[in-house]
Amino acid sequence: MRMYDIIEKKRDGHPLSEDEIRFFIKGYTEGSIPDYQASALCMAIFFQGMNDREISFLTDAMAHSGDMIDLSRFDTLSADKHSTGGVGDKTSLIVMPLVASLGAKVAKMTGRGLGHTGGTVDKLESIPGYDITLDEKTFLKQVEDIGIALVGQSGNLTPADKKLYALRDVTATVDSIPLITSSIMSKKLAAGAQNIVLDVKVGSGAFMKTVEDARVLAEKMTTIGRLCGRNIAAVLTNMDEPLGHNIGNALEVMEAVRVLQGEGPEDMKIVCLTLAATLISMVFRIPQEEAMKKAEEALSSGAAFAKMQEWIGRQGGDVRYLKDTSLFPKCAFSYDVRSGSEGYIQAVDAEQIGLCSVRLGAGRATKEEPVDPAAGIIIKKKIGDKVARGDVLCTLYTNRRAVLKEAAAQISAAVTIGPDAPIKKPLIFDIVR
Amino acid sequence: MRMYDIIEKKRDGHPLSEDEIRFFIKGYTEGSIPDYQASALCMAIFFQGMNDREISFLTDAMAHSGDMIDLSRFDTLSADKHSTGGVGDKTSLIVMPLVASLGAKVAKMTGRGLGHTGGTVDKLESIPGYDITLDEKTFLKQVEDIGIALVGQSGNLTPADKKLYALRDVTATVDSIPLITSSIMSKKLAAGAQNIVLDVKVGSGAFMKTVEDARVLAEKMTTIGRLCGRNIAAVLTNMDEPLGHNIGNALEVMEAVRVLQGEGPEDMKIVCLTLAATLISMVFRIPQEEAMKKAEEALSSGAAFAKMQEWIGRQGGDVRYLKDTSLFPKCAFSYDVRSGSEGYIQAVDAEQIGLCSVRLGAGRATKEEPVDPAAGIIIKKKIGDKVARGDVLCTLYTNRRAVLKEAAAQISAAVTIGPDAPIKKPLIFDIVR
Repeated sequence: MRMYDIIEKKRDGHPLSEDEIRFFIKGYTEGSIPDYQASALCMAIFFQGMNDREISFLTDAMAHSGDMIDLSRFDTLSADKHSTGGVGDKTSLIVMPLVASLGAKVAKMTGRGLGHTGGTVDKLESIPGYDITLDEKTFLKQVEDIGIALVGQSGNLTPADKKLYALRDVTATVDSIPLITSSIMSKKLAAGAQNIVLDVKVGSGAFMKTVEDARVLAEKMTTIGRLCGRNIAAVLTNMDEPLGHNIGNALEVMEAVRVLQGEGPEDMKIVCLTLAATLISMVFRIPQEEAMKKAEEALSSGAAFAKMQEWIGRQGGDVRYLKDTSLFPKCAFSYDVRSGSEGYIQAVDAEQIGLCSVRLGAGRATKEEPVDPAAGIIIKKKIGDKVARGDVLCTLYTNRRAVLKEAAAQISAAVTIGPDAPIKKPLIFDIVR
Repeated sequence: MRMYDIIEKKRDGHPLSEDEIRFFIKGYTEGSIPDYQASALCMAIFFQGMNDREISFLTDAMAHSGDMIDLSRFDTLSADKHSTGGVGDKTSLIVMPLVASLGAKVAKMTGRGLGHTGGTVDKLESIPGYDITLDEKTFLKQVEDIGIALVGQSGNLTPADKKLYALRDVTATVDSIPLITSSIMSKKLAAGAQNIVLDVKVGSGAFMKTVEDARVLAEKMTTIGRLCGRNIAAVLTNMDEPLGHNIGNALEVMEAVRVLQGEGPEDMKIVCLTLAATLISMVFRIPQEEAMKKAEEALSSGAAFAKMQEWIGRQGGDVRYLKDTSLFPKCAFSYDVRSGSEGYIQAVDAEQIGLCSVRLGAGRATKEEPVDPAAGIIIKKKIGDKVARGDVLCTLYTNRRAVLKEAAAQISAAVTIGPDAPIKKPLIFDIVR
């Protein structure tokens, strides 16, 4: 078998066989197939696409390119969640303890933030003492005991995807449904859960800008997940503005705690309950409405919050910070961004808000940078809110005084104010199964 | 400027600017742009194409990536020829001295054979003493003095094309009209001639299998040549079977001599006269018919043959071999391939005949292999000829006894014999200007 023939076959619009796809992934992971052939194939896939069989072979081959987490001891109860990435997206901090409190088994590997979106690992690390580096045995034992553990990605998970994604990122071949699907789904397969909910973000702060595009991706991912033997559903959620009010690591933990305490912003609550219910309906094979009731109960009864405290405490985190979030350290500088005009918030460029938060210190531009747990943004006005001139749109928090002025300008430019109340889009566009 | 943006722009179907194309070629030649980005761009070009402006910028940028031969001292008289590659194609050995005998200035760089097609350098080296490595000054002085010199490619001509072609060859991106056109035309631009005839081969032994495909390439090359300021015409010639009777280095020189002596096969003569006339009509700005008369005269008067002897002698070749071709060394082994059935020759797989000749020793599978000047094939029966069972189809010549049996089987499989006389295709399909 020759890589040349595989490129030519895909270039000419023919489906690749399972053997050809496995040959490519094995050779590329090992280094016997060079980058320049892999990038030519990715561009051919960009133009010619792949059918579902091809994508499922590609997904499976990438999943098996490294370690596979074995969650079979949890039978059909294992549950995982993936977000395509948004701003202010602290849903994992709420959804995962919630479903664990109902008996699902959450053994979750999660990532650091890069670019305009944050990462759950960074958020958890803002809680003093929280240990994201459990060894596999301790990790699985904790899930057995209390139903939940969240750790950073470790070991050699999907090396093929890591290598291929880095190549696609510099050859303009990221934006391809078969390649996006196989990249996301291979990581989920390797992570081992039987039930997976995908939070497919749609809007100005998301990779997918339209519901139509998001639906295509969601349908493809659920199809491929099923072909690979997992239960999977995708929730299309609104990312036209940041989720909730808080952006930044400790700030997002604080908001998650408020939601788990039955307070917190309504949009956060609705998105989290929908994701949790969708996962619960898969884990326990019950209708969505019944699952939603269970999720609401877990939230209102305090069971979800109790599970969060148990989990954070078990992983070494100082639970006092959850009981009293005023303990979290504060930034040296804060700044109120005020409205320069009056009217209604029409639109928000969520990606710019996310980038502004990075600038304040809450995220990183390169993998090596540390993040500032205290830095971030609290949004005071959301889409549809009426504002007067001089009203505070949001407050910036940072330890970098020098960036405040530019950050404030970036926020002002990202918020569109107009005379009429805008028609608000739904928070949940659809659930794709 | 970033290579990523250039790939993305082409991927999305937008024309690249002159600056972008020059940035790519400069960066790729220098090594600052990696192979994996270049191959992704080539695949994007494969799918999205390039307009004539883009191709002419690409051609010009590649031509200027290395040395440019300056033939301005010959004003409008400089003449060059390029063949897209065929089997038994010894036309340069005839056409170049012919046009030189009429006053055109031929300063030609030529290549070695690779794959199933031979190379003019290998053919010339079968003449004892012939020196293919003149320095530039001696090379141009010889053209000034006698109107013709043919040397091997030397110096640093079109390094961008060399590097890019090698990459395309392993990434399934050869078969793209913009990339083929710019590759061929950049070499012709760098070689310096004002007037260029392209012999675009069509058929079983050629890269282009159909007249329609060949016409597309021919029209693109003439357009780009003109945009780059050269006079250019393309002749679409038949390559459904090898040209003439002889394949192999010394064997082809012997046949070229016969044609220049007014003998030799009719197909050779017609193709050579058409190519020569097309070039002469450009160099001297005269109609094709008048140019054809001049070409025929140069052949029948012996002027072309005299010019060949002058040229070969001036470059150190032993002219006695041209006057008496029986002096050329013979192979140790020969073998008559005979017909197993009776009827008419319907079709010949010219590429297989070419590959068989390589196997006999006349060509090389890798760049480093030496060639055997004496090895090759003499074809006795051509398409449309009637054959009886046992008739000799061709004779194989080799110094490698071990390959004879397989070579004979390869020939038998490459020749189709059937009961009815086939309809013969024309030798010259068209002339594109």
